[in-house]
Amino acid sequence: MSCRIQVEPTGKLMEELILDVQQKIVAGLEAIDGQKFYQDRWTKGEGGYGISCVIQEGNVFEKGGVNTSIVQGVLSQDAVQRMRANHEGIDRSAKELPFFAAGISMVIHPSNPMAPTTHLNYRYFELVNSDGRKIWWFGGGADLTPSVLFEDDARHFHKLHKDACDRHDPTFYPRFKKWADDYFLIKHRKETRGIGGIFFDDLSEKDPKDLFAFVKDCAYTFLPSYIPIMEKRKDMEFTEADKEFQLIRRGYYTEFNVMYDRGTWFGLQAPNPRVESILMTLPLHASWRYNYEPKEERHKALLEATHNPVEWA
Amino acid sequence: MSCRIQVEPTGKLMEELILDVQQKIVAGLEAIDGQKFYQDRWTKGEGGYGISCVIQEGNVFEKGGVNTSIVQGVLSQDAVQRMRANHEGIDRSAKELPFFAAGISMVIHPSNPMAPTTHLNYRYFELVNSDGRKIWWFGGGADLTPSVLFEDDARHFHKLHKDACDRHDPTFYPRFKKWADDYFLIKHRKETRGIGGIFFDDLSEKDPKDLFAFVKDCAYTFLPSYIPIMEKRKDMEFTEADKEFQLIRRGYYTEFNVMYDRGTWFGLQAPNPRVESILMTLPLHASWRYNYEPKEERHKALLEATHNPVEWA
Repeated sequence: MSCRIQVEPTGKLMEELILDVQQKIVAGLEAIDGQKFYQDRWTKGEGGYGISCVIQEGNVFEKGGVNTSIVQGVLSQDAVQRMRANHEGIDRSAKELPFFAAGISMVIHPSNPMAPTTHLNYRYFELVNSDGRKIWWFGGGADLTPSVLFEDDARHFHKLHKDACDRHDPTFYPRFKKWADDYFLIKHRKETRGIGGIFFDDLSEKDPKDLFAFVKDCAYTFLPSYIPIMEKRKDMEFTEADKEFQLIRRGYYTEFNVMYDRGTWFGLQAPNPRVESILMTLPLHASWRYNYEPKEERHKALLEATHNPVEWA
Repeated sequence: MSCRIQVEPTGKLMEELILDVQQKIVAGLEAIDGQKFYQDRWTKGEGGYGISCVIQEGNVFEKGGVNTSIVQGVLSQDAVQRMRANHEGIDRSAKELPFFAAGISMVIHPSNPMAPTTHLNYRYFELVNSDGRKIWWFGGGADLTPSVLFEDDARHFHKLHKDACDRHDPTFYPRFKKWADDYFLIKHRKETRGIGGIFFDDLSEKDPKDLFAFVKDCAYTFLPSYIPIMEKRKDMEFTEADKEFQLIRRGYYTEFNVMYDRGTWFGLQAPNPRVESILMTLPLHASWRYNYEPKEERHKALLEATHNPVEWA
């Protein structure tokens, strides 16, 4: 197609990476759960394709999805406007800009309240500016949202992501850890939705090969950062109070995702949103109790960490 | 207090009305439920007071609240900015405007999926413009959100509200019914959250006495519009599929309230929001299922009505 842009080598590498990461993550989660994900490949004419992998009411996971999408198209002026705040150098007067995007996103909600929800997203974006110049960047991260807090789990998850960051740039983890704490804030509750992780956007400060290597390292860090936690937590005994607390925290998760998450909000504002795909991140069940107060110490411990982010690694 | 405004007689009448309506509604709902509401009177220094009445895990009502607030204060420039779009004639350059507001708001979620959720809100607003001129208006309405649709219930609820409107102005019901259908739209799903009712705002087109009489008539219409429905539905048998469908619809209710409801959004954006009071409208339980499709005809019937608003009266 003449309208397609000549994607940089990094774009192709990213496409291969996310497809491989998706299959490995799905296989890893299936091995823990015992139930297969439902897999669905979709295409968008000649504009791209993606694979949706969904599990619902599994043995271990109440609900979860691992999605990839590799798309090309033209950003409308409206979309270009929205981009401005996010990335420097994009032509402000452009009516339309051709783009390529490849990304993987995942949200996993386990059934057991001792086991944490987790989220991951890595994406590469490329566009042709009006002067013909390529603009590209990476974004993404991974974060953990326990209801019952186990400090060992928090430290393990952060440590592995810090190690991945440190292998590429010692400034990355401190910056991206702080960015996650700021981004995942539920503003009206003045607390974060979970215990964070790493988050970054508009990343283009190094050679694309180097940043791709960094993103690749982070993406392959997910399974070793999460599976050992699940092995410890998936069959733990829990009380009714733990389950109730989990449902309350899933209510908060819902509030964050529909009110503050940039991807959800922009996705739903689009002319013909794929609502099911966008809201796949919401939990199977959530509760809102008037004047709810956690009574157990292990629940109060989480609130301490969501109100005052901790240096876990 | 010298900073308090000289409230118009309508303000005092509205204060008496909403307190009386609140006690009558609470008594009516308690008679159906058998469990008492928890009642809590709060004061805001000399700036006002209110009464919160809450029921949770009652015999009939899973969660519900009936709240009044009568407050005076000064609208900041930011708040004045937000008002502009809503009401004509407010001084655009004013830094601060003294105001008085009296309102009642209610959301009731029954347990039985055959019984509809309902919402009511009536409010009177008064402010002193920078030229010393008083600006005032009424707003409010009532609407019904069934999960299983009984056409008799929809017709009964609308008919009584139409009768109340018609006693004051024949143009009111058609205008305010349409306004409810537009207002309660869940934009990303392209459907309304329920089967509507009436909704109006910035209403000041008649003598305040006449509009107060109209609002009073509407407010006293609530119990006869809802109690007979509850008597028929509260003990009906239902299936697991009905309960599941109810939880899905409560997810949609949550989406509307936190994403689109003006009161919720502005309330939560305020510097120190009373989050528990604002989010008291959310259901005790809600579910999100991937690619959920209702299988029962009585569930599909609701979707037909939420996608294509019906003239019920």
